[in-house]
Amino acid sequence: MRIDSVNLNAFSIREDITIARDDLFPLFLGGNKARKMVNIIADIERNHCDAVVTTGGIQSNHCRVVALACSLNQWKCKLILHGSKKQFFSEKGNALLMRMADVQLEFVPGNQIGPAMDQAMEEFRSEGYKPYYLYGGGHNKAGTLAYVDAMYELKKALPAETGIDHIFLASGTGSTQAGILAGCRKVGWNDTRVHGISVARAQKRGSEAILESLDFLGADTSTFQNDIIFSDDFLFGGYGKYSRELQEFVSQIARDTGILLDTTYSGKAFFGMVETIKNQNLTGNILFWHTGGIFNLMA
Amino acid sequence: MRIDSVNLNAFSIREDITIARDDLFPLFLGGNKARKMVNIIADIERNHCDAVVTTGGIQSNHCRVVALACSLNQWKCKLILHGSKKQFFSEKGNALLMRMADVQLEFVPGNQIGPAMDQAMEEFRSEGYKPYYLYGGGHNKAGTLAYVDAMYELKKALPAETGIDHIFLASGTGSTQAGILAGCRKVGWNDTRVHGISVARAQKRGSEAILESLDFLGADTSTFQNDIIFSDDFLFGGYGKYSRELQEFVSQIARDTGILLDTTYSGKAFFGMVETIKNQNLTGNILFWHTGGIFNLMA
Repeated sequence: MRIDSVNLNAFSIREDITIARDDLFPLFLGGNKARKMVNIIADIERNHCDAVVTTGGIQSNHCRVVALACSLNQWKCKLILHGSKKQFFSEKGNALLMRMADVQLEFVPGNQIGPAMDQAMEEFRSEGYKPYYLYGGGHNKAGTLAYVDAMYELKKALPAETGIDHIFLASGTGSTQAGILAGCRKVGWNDTRVHGISVARAQKRGSEAILESLDFLGADTSTFQNDIIFSDDFLFGGYGKYSRELQEFVSQIARDTGILLDTTYSGKAFFGMVETIKNQNLTGNILFWHTGGIFNLMA
Repeated sequence: MRIDSVNLNAFSIREDITIARDDLFPLFLGGNKARKMVNIIADIERNHCDAVVTTGGIQSNHCRVVALACSLNQWKCKLILHGSKKQFFSEKGNALLMRMADVQLEFVPGNQIGPAMDQAMEEFRSEGYKPYYLYGGGHNKAGTLAYVDAMYELKKALPAETGIDHIFLASGTGSTQAGILAGCRKVGWNDTRVHGISVARAQKRGSEAILESLDFLGADTSTFQNDIIFSDDFLFGGYGKYSRELQEFVSQIARDTGILLDTTYSGKAFFGMVETIKNQNLTGNILFWHTGGIFNLMA
């Protein structure tokens, strides 16, 4: 695992933050979806599947990763995409990368995703394949476990005896956060606070989703009830939306640290972290989990 | 250093190729220019400079890296850019990243670069700064030395006693290739052949430039005379140009290996490598040095 330390003097809040660089994860062009996919690939193999059906937006990091992973493994793949087909074929970023992979595409309205996925599963079956049904975002047990494992990796990558008091990350469907939270407890970091900064969902729904993911893992969710921190205070109007202030913030971080955030995921999380540290006077060792998202900036 | 191994069965030429992943170099968004810049930063500090003047195209990887590095170090920076100002402000990729950094920009025709750089130097001096004159592409001694050092890093990252018989890389201004070549000899790899695949220059001019870079290093260039391999057989019409075939090739590599190349630099080099291995029946351990360039694909 790549660990960096950046100086946050510019914000005059504290000297440094440790960063887990999953934006540099070496497979499938990086990010948390890539880390999850490595585990999901193992699950696909365990199930002897040879086709994958999944879903996402036209700039989905998850769909980019699935497309590249299926190509690499020579599995059939169908992406059920929501959003504008025209935009998909004109935009760069993840859309370009999906176009480069050799996968089947279907564009549907948001409320038709479920039926379209079911139909795609049926079609693969009728063609003699054994398809794997993969929820959007890689939201399943295998994907969540990837982040439990990542905590062992993180602990090993840090200097011996270094604990982390607060972890901040961009939180969407909740499985990355659930994996990190469960992983903290597994490695014996019982007091580490895992702060999810919502990129889409309201506080209540987001928190429930994290508990659902913990449930996937077979964890006793009651023991986590008080550990779920999921803030919707830094949504900037909703998924994919951002303000001039956030744009300026992301540029400022690039200038001050050389690390690139995007305005959909990591930028909101980093912003939320800086504000939370300030507002709550957080002390101790703080880690930002950079979950990637550069292609969203390039879209 | 991140080392990957990819299976090239798809090409039926050999089983695998080792890849040095400088596309994942963790600072300034990666690539060979970022690796060079780390060394150049040390040189700027040694010279007690506090401003940088450099040049490149509107999608220059080098200029993106310089802009981010200067911001990080709070140095003044002026980029003399050639190309369309309008395009610069509408495109993504490196242009977007340069816009995010807080640097001075000037757009000039290609034949006005020298005078414009001189004037920028003069202006910084008259304002009381001590500017550092940096050739396009980071083409100086410090930049070249970065790749001499990288060879030590590579040797350490490979399993003990593993030698490399052939190294392939995209070669532009020649300093990366010169550094790798000199570095091979430094680490005792006396027979390693370093194959530069030109992304712009004709064979003769490109080879001379590599010798010039070796000269920067104070190397006895006569001993390298027979070691310069610089092929202009894979230019695809010139700098930045590409064909449908190259596009398809890059997509195929993404599908087969999960590794992303671009059509300006690494794609041409990888294509040239595959062809050269085939045409010359190369055997032994082969390494592809992935020098980055993803933002060129996103531009």
